[in-house]
Amino acid sequence: MSLQTLINGEAREEIPVLDRGFQYGDGLFETIKVAAGKPEFWDRHMARLARGCATLKIPMPDAATLRSEAQILCKDGDGVLKIIVTRGVGGRGYNPPSPAMPNRIIALFPLPDYPKTNASEGVAVRICTTKLSEQPALAGLKHLNRLEQVIARSEWSDSGIAEGLMCDDADNVIEGTMSNVFIVRSGALVTPGLARSGVAGIIREAVIELAKVLGIECAVRAVPLAELDQAEEIFLTNSVIGIWPVKAISARKFVPRAMTTRMQAALSEMRK
Amino acid sequence: MSLQTLINGEAREEIPVLDRGFQYGDGLFETIKVAAGKPEFWDRHMARLARGCATLKIPMPDAATLRSEAQILCKDGDGVLKIIVTRGVGGRGYNPPSPAMPNRIIALFPLPDYPKTNASEGVAVRICTTKLSEQPALAGLKHLNRLEQVIARSEWSDSGIAEGLMCDDADNVIEGTMSNVFIVRSGALVTPGLARSGVAGIIREAVIELAKVLGIECAVRAVPLAELDQAEEIFLTNSVIGIWPVKAISARKFVPRAMTTRMQAALSEMRK
Repeated sequence: MSLQTLINGEAREEIPVLDRGFQYGDGLFETIKVAAGKPEFWDRHMARLARGCATLKIPMPDAATLRSEAQILCKDGDGVLKIIVTRGVGGRGYNPPSPAMPNRIIALFPLPDYPKTNASEGVAVRICTTKLSEQPALAGLKHLNRLEQVIARSEWSDSGIAEGLMCDDADNVIEGTMSNVFIVRSGALVTPGLARSGVAGIIREAVIELAKVLGIECAVRAVPLAELDQAEEIFLTNSVIGIWPVKAISARKFVPRAMTTRMQAALSEMRK
Repeated sequence: MSLQTLINGEAREEIPVLDRGFQYGDGLFETIKVAAGKPEFWDRHMARLARGCATLKIPMPDAATLRSEAQILCKDGDGVLKIIVTRGVGGRGYNPPSPAMPNRIIALFPLPDYPKTNASEGVAVRICTTKLSEQPALAGLKHLNRLEQVIARSEWSDSGIAEGLMCDDADNVIEGTMSNVFIVRSGALVTPGLARSGVAGIIREAVIELAKVLGIECAVRAVPLAELDQAEEIFLTNSVIGIWPVKAISARKFVPRAMTTRMQAALSEMRK
């Protein structure tokens, strides 16, 4: 399966240089796993996209149109659907055009070839030296300003390291470069609050809800880096990987993963 | 004069959706004033672009090639030249491709129609509520992640307000949405340090050097917002506007502007 792209419904692979997504990163995106033609957690992705559009004051594309365009690309296959919504073409200068004429870009990528053992046996993770900046006006949004993630992901090339965790300036863990993080302490879940940094992931949201349904306590709060050492288990979430257990952070190994396995099973049920 | 664009030397106006400048804001830009076919402060712009490329580990395009492409667009006219350099096309995921094949985009825009009185009589300025985040790894660079500026610029629509000043979380003034800022105190210049936020502007650099030549003290340090009230004069700088005096910030008026006028004259000489 090669890349296929629809821009505002047309089969194209190029956007105008004057698109503000290119000029300023003035837009949002969603990364959606597609299994047997079905985009998983579609409604949650659309709800997050709508929240992001509302925050940035970009008109939200019609979700039914997005859905039918997604179906044209996905057919009955598997893959990763990336939806980008930008404020559209503008002139020079930061002042947003009014009214904005958003551009919507939908592209289908092949599923990444992660080792299957990532989900079963866990992944090794590192701590990034690049810190996440704090911007309450953008925190939680999956927006197109992602240079911090690019820099952080450039810190390592060892293919044995699957992810890097990023902290804020006060050394609170916020998230991975491409994932959210949960730790298990005394049989309860904890995940970092995202009021000032980070992306509020769809699987993170699902896990928080699943915990509630299962009667498992899940705290959303600051997680100092040093607390990772005290964790019984750690796992990572995103829409493409689902849930990956962390088997090691540097020298610290994580062996039991009863809670992680339980949440993986619950997430699988939710996907059905 | 309408927009004209060269992408890697070819007359085109679209870039691939997979360009990392579009996907992540993974690139840099320069905004250069062109007068009678001559791009002003060319060497300084190229030096900053090279520094940015080095920091982001993007191969710097050949400056002589950029110069000849600029000349094709500028001919003997006036305008604003925008040069964008991105890490080029990549796959899905933050990990930068190696080696990167950068894309260079050069576009010539008409000069903005700012009122002539902006430079002679000064401009009214506001204080933005949007704060600048702190990211030492990116501070000073003119990179493509500019959502904070977009949000800040969206705070006002009153055309009588020419610029908004932005502070960090500790309420230190850092810069305007599109300009750097200088204040005059006891006959000396002060401009905010940019080690953790902000764009190190070309005219800011020139003013700092001019002050040295003229024997005027110029401190680069933190400038608490409250200090603006104590300023004798305030002025803004960028490559297109040159130097604009600030005539008012909210109710506070700034009337004498001997130092601002002196620096405007010195900058004019430097441009020759």
